[in-house]
Amino acid sequence: MIKVGIVGATGYAGCELVRLIGSHPEAEVAAISSVSFEGKKISDVYPSYIYLNDMVCENADEVVRKSDVVFAALPHGLSQELAAECKKNNVKFIDLGADFRLESEDEYTEWYGGTFLDKALHEESVYGLPEFFRDDIKGKSVIANPGCYTTCSPLALAPAVVNGLIEMKGIICNCASGVTGAGRKPVQGNHYPELNEGFHAYKVACHRHTPEIEQTLSRLSGEKVTVTFVPHLLPVNRGILATCYADVKEGVTYEDLRKAYEDYYKDEFFVRVLPEGMCADIHNIKYSNFCDISVHFDKRAGKLVACAAIDNMVKGAAGQAIQNMNIIFGLDEKTGLDIIPPAF
Amino acid sequence: MIKVGIVGATGYAGCELVRLIGSHPEAEVAAISSVSFEGKKISDVYPSYIYLNDMVCENADEVVRKSDVVFAALPHGLSQELAAECKKNNVKFIDLGADFRLESEDEYTEWYGGTFLDKALHEESVYGLPEFFRDDIKGKSVIANPGCYTTCSPLALAPAVVNGLIEMKGIICNCASGVTGAGRKPVQGNHYPELNEGFHAYKVACHRHTPEIEQTLSRLSGEKVTVTFVPHLLPVNRGILATCYADVKEGVTYEDLRKAYEDYYKDEFFVRVLPEGMCADIHNIKYSNFCDISVHFDKRAGKLVACAAIDNMVKGAAGQAIQNMNIIFGLDEKTGLDIIPPAF
Amino acid sequence: MIKVGIVGATGYAGCELVRLIGSHPEAEVAAISSVSFEGKKISDVYPSYIYLNDMVCENADEVVRKSDVVFAALPHGLSQELAAECKKNNVKFIDLGADFRLESEDEYTEWYGGTFLDKALHEESVYGLPEFFRDDIKGKSVIANPGCYTTCSPLALAPAVVNGLIEMKGIICNCASGVTGAGRKPVQGNHYPELNEGFHAYKVACHRHTPEIEQTLSRLSGEKVTVTFVPHLLPVNRGILATCYADVKEGVTYEDLRKAYEDYYKDEFFVRVLPEGMCADIHNIKYSNFCDISVHFDKRAGKLVACAAIDNMVKGAAGQAIQNMNIIFGLDEKTGLDIIPPAF
Amino acid sequence: MIKVGIVGATGYAGCELVRLIGSHPEAEVAAISSVSFEGKKISDVYPSYIYLNDMVCENADEVVRKSDVVFAALPHGLSQELAAECKKNNVKFIDLGADFRLESEDEYTEWYGGTFLDKALHEESVYGLPEFFRDDIKGKSVIANPGCYTTCSPLALAPAVVNGLIEMKGIICNCASGVTGAGRKPVQGNHYPELNEGFHAYKVACHRHTPEIEQTLSRLSGEKVTVTFVPHLLPVNRGILATCYADVKEGVTYEDLRKAYEDYYKDEFFVRVLPEGMCADIHNIKYSNFCDISVHFDKRAGKLVACAAIDNMVKGAAGQAIQNMNIIFGLDEKTGLDIIPPAF
Repeated sequence: MIKVGIVGATGYAGCELVRLIGSHPEAEVAAISSVSFEGKKISDVYPSYIYLNDMVCENADEVVRKSDVVFAALPHGLSQELAAECKKNNVKFIDLGADFRLESEDEYTEWYGGTFLDKALHEESVYGLPEFFRDDIKGKSVIANPGCYTTCSPLALAPAVVNGLIEMKGIICNCASGVTGAGRKPVQGNHYPELNEGFHAYKVACHRHTPEIEQTLSRLSGEKVTVTFVPHLLPVNRGILATCYADVKEGVTYEDLRKAYEDYYKDEFFVRVLPEGMCADIHNIKYSNFCDISVHFDKRAGKLVACAAIDNMVKGAAGQAIQNMNIIFGLDEKTGLDIIPPAF
Repeated sequence: MIKVGIVGATGYAGCELVRLIGSHPEAEVAAISSVSFEGKKISDVYPSYIYLNDMVCENADEVVRKSDVVFAALPHGLSQELAAECKKNNVKFIDLGADFRLESEDEYTEWYGGTFLDKALHEESVYGLPEFFRDDIKGKSVIANPGCYTTCSPLALAPAVVNGLIEMKGIICNCASGVTGAGRKPVQGNHYPELNEGFHAYKVACHRHTPEIEQTLSRLSGEKVTVTFVPHLLPVNRGILATCYADVKEGVTYEDLRKAYEDYYKDEFFVRVLPEGMCADIHNIKYSNFCDISVHFDKRAGKLVACAAIDNMVKGAAGQAIQNMNIIFGLDEKTGLDIIPPAF
Repeated sequence: MIKVGIVGATGYAGCELVRLIGSHPEAEVAAISSVSFEGKKISDVYPSYIYLNDMVCENADEVVRKSDVVFAALPHGLSQELAAECKKNNVKFIDLGADFRLESEDEYTEWYGGTFLDKALHEESVYGLPEFFRDDIKGKSVIANPGCYTTCSPLALAPAVVNGLIEMKGIICNCASGVTGAGRKPVQGNHYPELNEGFHAYKVACHRHTPEIEQTLSRLSGEKVTVTFVPHLLPVNRGILATCYADVKEGVTYEDLRKAYEDYYKDEFFVRVLPEGMCADIHNIKYSNFCDISVHFDKRAGKLVACAAIDNMVKGAAGQAIQNMNIIFGLDEKTGLDIIPPAF
Repeated sequence: MIKVGIVGATGYAGCELVRLIGSHPEAEVAAISSVSFEGKKISDVYPSYIYLNDMVCENADEVVRKSDVVFAALPHGLSQELAAECKKNNVKFIDLGADFRLESEDEYTEWYGGTFLDKALHEESVYGLPEFFRDDIKGKSVIANPGCYTTCSPLALAPAVVNGLIEMKGIICNCASGVTGAGRKPVQGNHYPELNEGFHAYKVACHRHTPEIEQTLSRLSGEKVTVTFVPHLLPVNRGILATCYADVKEGVTYEDLRKAYEDYYKDEFFVRVLPEGMCADIHNIKYSNFCDISVHFDKRAGKLVACAAIDNMVKGAAGQAIQNMNIIFGLDEKTGLDIIPPAF
């Protein structure tokens, strides 16, 4: 059994890791930590876990000491030191935060305001979006697990990008996320009566996931891409829908687009390209690691419209992190993740 | 008192008209009709009205006979005959359906499948989006009340369009609507457990509101416009958010955009251009005739992002219809509509 | 115009008062105050009010100085001093908090922990549940506006109590409230993802509204009553449903119960005794001052089951406070409150 | 592997069975049937299953032929014939419908309107609430799987009943259920806009689960029990909370009650008696087979208040059916059901 440590276990992504590892046949939670709840049981924080997982939160050092792999679900800026500690102890490190996601230190500084503390470690780290970069991930020890918006937006666009079917200028990623994406801390905007029955954009064209989406699309296309990314907040617990728009190149047909999507993802278990006529819906992937994609063509305006739905806490966080763990430990990528999403 | 007749009173838009006219100081509901519920009280259909409005549904002829103005909230195709009947009886007619919205019969045929039964009547009718076409509406007798998406999308874009600040090619209207927009009839997709906690696009780039949005933007810009319109279904009762994207012309700044919006709407009571830093939210205009607009600029990509929030049942249907009634009867446009939206 | 002052205007009950007074034909908001937001506009706190009510929060002294009547929506313990100040200035005082609700100082001390600072003032104050105590309210200057649970539970039971149709021992008030009842302050339990899709009881048989419900039922019945009161938290914004249970006296029939309810409330505009076969639903009274009541009889077990639905923010707080204002100023009780509840 | 057949697989309980058996290590879905969708894939009905389970619905005969055990999720009245067919083919039969739940044919006739077609089969059948009747279930072939309300209400009361701590007269079961309990068929009352933000009782004191709750409590207590059962409809997808009230016998203390609950359920994996101070919440057991119970004592009124929360689709339907399957096939009762409920 792989011994899993979780640092930041009482945040939403951390607690989802605890749950998912709990039903993983080849891994077990060895230790958890939390700054805010050190000494408390995780089931004190999440009563749905009571009697099933009453592990006590320790500190990060204990977690590193007891683990083969450490997952970190921390605010940005706090992972770099922990990654170094893991490396020293020969422990794999999977970061659900942002510290290792951007390759360019300048971009990191511009969007997050810090610097790369250990450049060699950054060199060594790899961006863990398996559907695109699986081969790079194998055998690595420091994985930057992508963010939620930054998983579904590129998944929605990749086949068109890779096959050169769309213009790389003017791409729009219009996304909507469930509230868990905003974290566990109660804030006015996510207080039930003020969010319920509401819907609004936020951080329009200035959200930190922008450069990360651009980095992935640039790697896939081979050219420097700028996207317009506008996130919205949905009154649901889980799920992100990315509705992406791009100009289709002269002469490209719906059939071309459709074939590109079906071919590109034909061996990807976790990506479900939906049949013509269906639209991706966050309702259908909740609690699962699947990404549902629907491909549409606005022939009148010459636009590709591609929708991708993921569970922001699973494929957008904890599930993808486990998918990465499976890869680096040589397991079948689906291990512990091949459940059927509930119908309601 | 203006005697108001409502044909199709038991649909969502019809029953909202009953409620709003109920608190209008210069109008009163004189008669209502419903094909499905003829002979029944409206409070049998909507128990929230019990003892306050127990009017019995009659047939459309009775309604015409008893009214100074008839509002029709009918499936498309059924209004043309009723409009003619109203004209014959010298009764004003405000159509909440689609029959008179499109100026081009060809487009009507293409998107709705019927023809213009009485061309003179169509000539005479006017498109009732007061913020743009107020002067045309005054003194008219047949008003085509705009659809919900087709109210908020052009409101989001007009100041940029009219002032020539954006390219008219490549405009995207990404919209999300509450479920009342889909009508009162129970269908599988809007059955509570299948919609709740879900979010998805539908009728991608093929929704019937597309030519209507294009018609308005074309009138405002003076050139033929094609837009990509993608509606989504939100798990909330009321509200539409339109998030619209357009390429900003070379040299145009955020300040130019902002000034254009503030100037264009400075005398419009029902349009609230929000201060910089705020985002339009459907939470803030529920049950009211207001349209909240926020203007954003993606400087990196050269895109305008404009968000507009309306209540699809009020500014997107019944409220705007009353605004039109106020205009054609020479009342202050705000009469019966100047409430403060509830804070939650 | 009655000049209305609102102390604690930025809490949920306070801001609802601002909205409702805003459409009252005989009253206007003269001044508002808030400890947390002094110097800020109320529309900074509630953006739905933007441009429509941008009043700035002052302090309580200013509010008293400018008003004919002061509504106080404050945490318990803070109203007594303000009430004295109002009295000194000859200003009517309507308290939405708990300070004046309990007649017995001992009970107040037991459940709230404080004392009666000014006993004469307490003597003078009256409990403002108009349907029961209208005659006492007339001409008074200090009104204790009832709590939300304590409005709907007695309304559900009164006709059976007053007519001696039920045993006064063993009464159960099983209630469920929307989240606004818990206030505006973000707390973990009302953080969207932790409340959404949940339902639970809280403060079982130890909620502070217990002695207040008992006090009203005791006054109505003439004997000392003890009730079992269990509140629950509903994932909705507004509304309380009280489902009340009592043993029916030997020989009493459903027809007796029904007649008692219909007779007792026959002249009460705000109480709607529903026809047989219907069940009170919070959906049908939202945003209104109505209380819908359905009467049921479990013949097999000899139990009355009475359901009462109110909007906790209107009949359970701000609306009832205005109803009380109307009474003490000699206006028609319905003034500003006779709207039709929206159908959805 | 146990070959599982599911008759009525496209209803909510049926499709939940498909999902849960899908992750059961000792069973597999061998065949499914549906009258409404014969010839269609289950993933056409529930798109969350697409590509993961695309089984085609056959007819019931095929299902019986291919299975070791048949689960039937059918409207009442349709199971008896199928059960006989299974018996003839030596196939175990687990009925999620009501046909075999009531021991008394008179009660069945009174509440459901039919008769017992095959009395011997009814004799042979056993009521499958494992926590109470585990020993009776072992080795049986026809299992009547309890209803949802009828699982959680007796679970909430059993320890007090069995230990004689409460009066058996005057018991109240006040329950609230998520919407999936009302089935998949779209009806007006469960149309999203009419249920959302609502809450109401229904079938007050006349719901068909009443005699079933009484039957279980009577068996546990040894005396004939009548209960007042009032169900409510909650605007959530899943979950039932039963809040049960009973008069505590003279001299019984909270400690007595608490000890009774802890002792009675100490070996029950699926029942979690919560620590003092916590309240059972449907939020904490979603998607799982757990029943969370909180025990409260209203000392002032001498009432036990016991809350029990289950997922109506799992412990209240499909999960409990699998628990029964595990028992009759000699597996560990937890097999396939020992997941941690998600925290949100």
